[in-house]
Amino acid sequence: MKLTVYLAGEIHSNWREELKEKAQQRDLSLQFVGPQTVHALSDDIGEKILGKQPNKLYKDDAASDINNFRTQILLEKSDVVIAIFGEEYRQWNTAMDASTALSLNKPTIIIRPESLIHPLKELTNKANVTVETIDQALEILQYVYA
Amino acid sequence: MKLTVYLAGEIHSNWREELKEKAQQRDLSLQFVGPQTVHALSDDIGEKILGKQPNKLYKDDAASDINNFRTQILLEKSDVVIAIFGEEYRQWNTAMDASTALSLNKPTIIIRPESLIHPLKELTNKANVTVETIDQALEILQYVYA
Amino acid sequence: MKLTVYLAGEIHSNWREELKEKAQQRDLSLQFVGPQTVHALSDDIGEKILGKQPNKLYKDDAASDINNFRTQILLEKSDVVIAIFGEEYRQWNTAMDASTALSLNKPTIIIRPESLIHPLKELTNKANVTVETIDQALEILQYVYA
Amino acid sequence: MKLTVYLAGEIHSNWREELKEKAQQRDLSLQFVGPQTVHALSDDIGEKILGKQPNKLYKDDAASDINNFRTQILLEKSDVVIAIFGEEYRQWNTAMDASTALSLNKPTIIIRPESLIHPLKELTNKANVTVETIDQALEILQYVYA
Amino acid sequence: MKLTVYLAGEIHSNWREELKEKAQQRDLSLQFVGPQTVHALSDDIGEKILGKQPNKLYKDDAASDINNFRTQILLEKSDVVIAIFGEEYRQWNTAMDASTALSLNKPTIIIRPESLIHPLKELTNKANVTVETIDQALEILQYVYA
Amino acid sequence: MKLTVYLAGEIHSNWREELKEKAQQRDLSLQFVGPQTVHALSDDIGEKILGKQPNKLYKDDAASDINNFRTQILLEKSDVVIAIFGEEYRQWNTAMDASTALSLNKPTIIIRPESLIHPLKELTNKANVTVETIDQALEILQYVYA
Amino acid sequence: MKLTVYLAGEIHSNWREELKEKAQQRDLSLQFVGPQTVHALSDDIGEKILGKQPNKLYKDDAASDINNFRTQILLEKSDVVIAIFGEEYRQWNTAMDASTALSLNKPTIIIRPESLIHPLKELTNKANVTVETIDQALEILQYVYA
Amino acid sequence: MKLTVYLAGEIHSNWREELKEKAQQRDLSLQFVGPQTVHALSDDIGEKILGKQPNKLYKDDAASDINNFRTQILLEKSDVVIAIFGEEYRQWNTAMDASTALSLNKPTIIIRPESLIHPLKELTNKANVTVETIDQALEILQYVYA
Repeated sequence: MKLTVYLAGEIHSNWREELKEKAQQRDLSLQFVGPQTVHALSDDIGEKILGKQPNKLYKDDAASDINNFRTQILLEKSDVVIAIFGEEYRQWNTAMDASTALSLNKPTIIIRPESLIHPLKELTNKANVTVETIDQALEILQYVYA
Repeated sequence: MKLTVYLAGEIHSNWREELKEKAQQRDLSLQFVGPQTVHALSDDIGEKILGKQPNKLYKDDAASDINNFRTQILLEKSDVVIAIFGEEYRQWNTAMDASTALSLNKPTIIIRPESLIHPLKELTNKANVTVETIDQALEILQYVYA
Repeated sequence: MKLTVYLAGEIHSNWREELKEKAQQRDLSLQFVGPQTVHALSDDIGEKILGKQPNKLYKDDAASDINNFRTQILLEKSDVVIAIFGEEYRQWNTAMDASTALSLNKPTIIIRPESLIHPLKELTNKANVTVETIDQALEILQYVYA
Repeated sequence: MKLTVYLAGEIHSNWREELKEKAQQRDLSLQFVGPQTVHALSDDIGEKILGKQPNKLYKDDAASDINNFRTQILLEKSDVVIAIFGEEYRQWNTAMDASTALSLNKPTIIIRPESLIHPLKELTNKANVTVETIDQALEILQYVYA
Repeated sequence: MKLTVYLAGEIHSNWREELKEKAQQRDLSLQFVGPQTVHALSDDIGEKILGKQPNKLYKDDAASDINNFRTQILLEKSDVVIAIFGEEYRQWNTAMDASTALSLNKPTIIIRPESLIHPLKELTNKANVTVETIDQALEILQYVYA
Repeated sequence: MKLTVYLAGEIHSNWREELKEKAQQRDLSLQFVGPQTVHALSDDIGEKILGKQPNKLYKDDAASDINNFRTQILLEKSDVVIAIFGEEYRQWNTAMDASTALSLNKPTIIIRPESLIHPLKELTNKANVTVETIDQALEILQYVYA
Repeated sequence: MKLTVYLAGEIHSNWREELKEKAQQRDLSLQFVGPQTVHALSDDIGEKILGKQPNKLYKDDAASDINNFRTQILLEKSDVVIAIFGEEYRQWNTAMDASTALSLNKPTIIIRPESLIHPLKELTNKANVTVETIDQALEILQYVYA
Repeated sequence: MKLTVYLAGEIHSNWREELKEKAQQRDLSLQFVGPQTVHALSDDIGEKILGKQPNKLYKDDAASDINNFRTQILLEKSDVVIAIFGEEYRQWNTAMDASTALSLNKPTIIIRPESLIHPLKELTNKANVTVETIDQALEILQYVYA
């Protein structure tokens, strides 16, 4: 049984590559999808396709049209969602993806550092499981096959 | 036609009172619901009802059990959601409430300052309308009755 | 049993007033809702609330944000939808409202002149009943109470 | 990951062939479905299968029974919908297909010329992305795989 | 707590009046809805509103458009469905109403004589309860309030 | 694109074999499922698995438990439903299967002789298409691939 | 805002009366519904309405037909479910009611003694909140209004 | 047609192995999934992944987070659920899995000894079929292919 996992979260660090590599080491039958991880492309995709926009607001909105289009397709195809939160970014789209996944009844794991316990308490309470490391998230996926 | 409006967002300032007062001045047939706004009570409600918890994590999780229980009932009763974002807090539960409302097909207005255009772009793109002030949100509700 | 009826269709003629008056003459227990019928207001509502937009596209999009917000609330509250099509306008939002209503399992009546049989054939085929006059639509509603 | 794309819109020009060819040039893993594109067949299929109908109304209704049956199957199988609007036709079934797709939570791209901004404003506002050319629609699909 | 009960079944005998009277004797807080019970009106309503149809098939189809419109509204408003089957008629629309109610998760009681056990076995198996008399159906409704 | 077709209807004649053979001649990519067609087995399966039942009612109910279990699995797997009605049997389970399919949004074709126009008018009105012969039903399926 | 609360759980002790009295003391705007609490009536209702059954299995099944009919209506009308578990009974229908409520997205509180932590761990994990006393459950409901 | 079957129930005896072996002997095209059957692992998985918990309650809750995550994925993938109940355990999670499956419209078979007829009467009444032995459950699955 192959599972498709949507990896929600920031696109500034290479946590997805680390997770995919570690998943391969564990030999798990997983397929990974997620948002556009080239940051500049993710920000510019609206103007790149729809042309120059009048200002920053419309540039961002045009990019979001296309990023949300992408996420909607890939989230729908997923069996499981892993959402990561870190100290540095506000990551409201990560919270949005996790909530959407939970509303769609997709089993969801949240990874967050101990320092974020308080601000994330309502969201982690709704998620299936909350962990602190990528390894823990993978151990949970491995347990599905155990 | 009376509409019930869920007011999602931070509970540190008195924006809800301002909004309710202004709604009354406009003589709109609205009923407002929302999260617990006494901050200390919202944080302590878990231990208050379930007793002393082993540590901060469990204290927060117990409070969230009860806060999420409350939100689920009131959101379900709502016709419309207004979610406010400001500079100061991370407000991931606001993002969670707005996303849940959108997944439940509840018409949703987001209020956010210009400075938050970029970090909120995916969420505002999904919402029905995004404005910058409480007055604009009320003008939209007034338009429903116009 | 009181029914709420959404009146979808063009806002250039006074067909809604005619329909409401005739409903009153038949003494039917109906409440009517529908789109903003002051045409200029419907077109300008985006700029009126959100401020001057960069161009025609954004002006229209801002207005639609708010018009769609309004329709979503009122359609959700409705038990029945009546959608009218005439010769003069393209009325794609009427087609959109009727299709959305049918997808939401709302019983839907379409009123259209004989001349539009061919271009509307797929939509009228999906609707519950298609008639040619306002009186026929009201006779159907009267039959629900008969 | 292979995606199935429903191509909604008029059947008088060969835009589907152009789109399919261009998709092939981009080497995208897409499967295309859509309405019957042989216009005469689409209009006559009712009488062809169900026999001579009493008049034009019934001929059209019989054809729509079968065209809607076809569309319902293929739309349900699709991951994405592209709907095209042009100057020449009223294309109410295109508006119907796009609205149905959006109600079914299918990510939807609308292609329309600048001249149709105003009459399509409510529908394009509801769609995920609106563009002006086939190439832009394909760039968006390519971005899903990027 | 007032319950709305849809009474599905044939319209040739006065079983609905008997049931309503007996419900009143039991002083149950019930509101009853159901199909058009004036048989001629039910058969002729299509031509009455839409005008003379080309033949029997279209006359029946026009009537069904309007009868199904009516049933869809009233079934949606109901909390409970009672469907009666007797020896004399084929009553496929009764089977349709009962199945639709069960698919919509409406609690459903079937009343049928012992002689129909075999031909109705799959449908009665899906229904909540199957009884043989109107009195038994009312005893069940009374038990909801007991 | 392979479609799975549920063949609802009586199990006394060999119409399913005829339909499958004709489908093969047309070289359609269809997979067929349906109810148990060995009549005695269908009637006796309850007692065969669950043991001797107290009387006819319980024998029939035990068989229906298992027949409905089977139908629920296979209907859920189907893309399309074809339901046939003839003069001879009451076929309430055929009406139940067709209604359930329509409630589940499965495209549905009804085959019935001209003599049954009147008693089936509400159900055929709800179905996608109604035809008189197996060949017509197959022509419609062929049109999906045309 | 009045809430309807379904009280799931055993019917051998008078915990519902205690809970209702305490709710009244807190002056909460609640309406309570629940299963038949006269134990003998709950067990005998099948034979009472449907007549003598062949054996214990059929007596129980007939009673359950009617008890499940009752529960389905009342659970559907409820905004909140409270489910109580105690040491003495197996209470599988309590587990069934709580799970059904959770699947229907009804906010659910479980009351259970400390001794049942282990056997109820999967169910309490799925519920919104788990407490040990009736007073705690009422404090949570009071918090919704606070 | 391959079916995926979720095997809900206690993990103290080897009934799943017996069932799988017997399924193989019958040469049925079935794939089996189910809960973690290594009892110690199922109880300890929370602490194993999330670390030492403050007490028994939190240890159990942490394990349930992960066991429920697993069950949600596998239940969603299943076409059919078989749930077994025996004399010895309280098995409230079995009741929970069966109820969840029924709410998700998954066809469900319950296996229980005669001695449990009374306490399981409401749940078995809701299930599709209830039997007493593994062989009977497999005969039903075999009948789906017959």
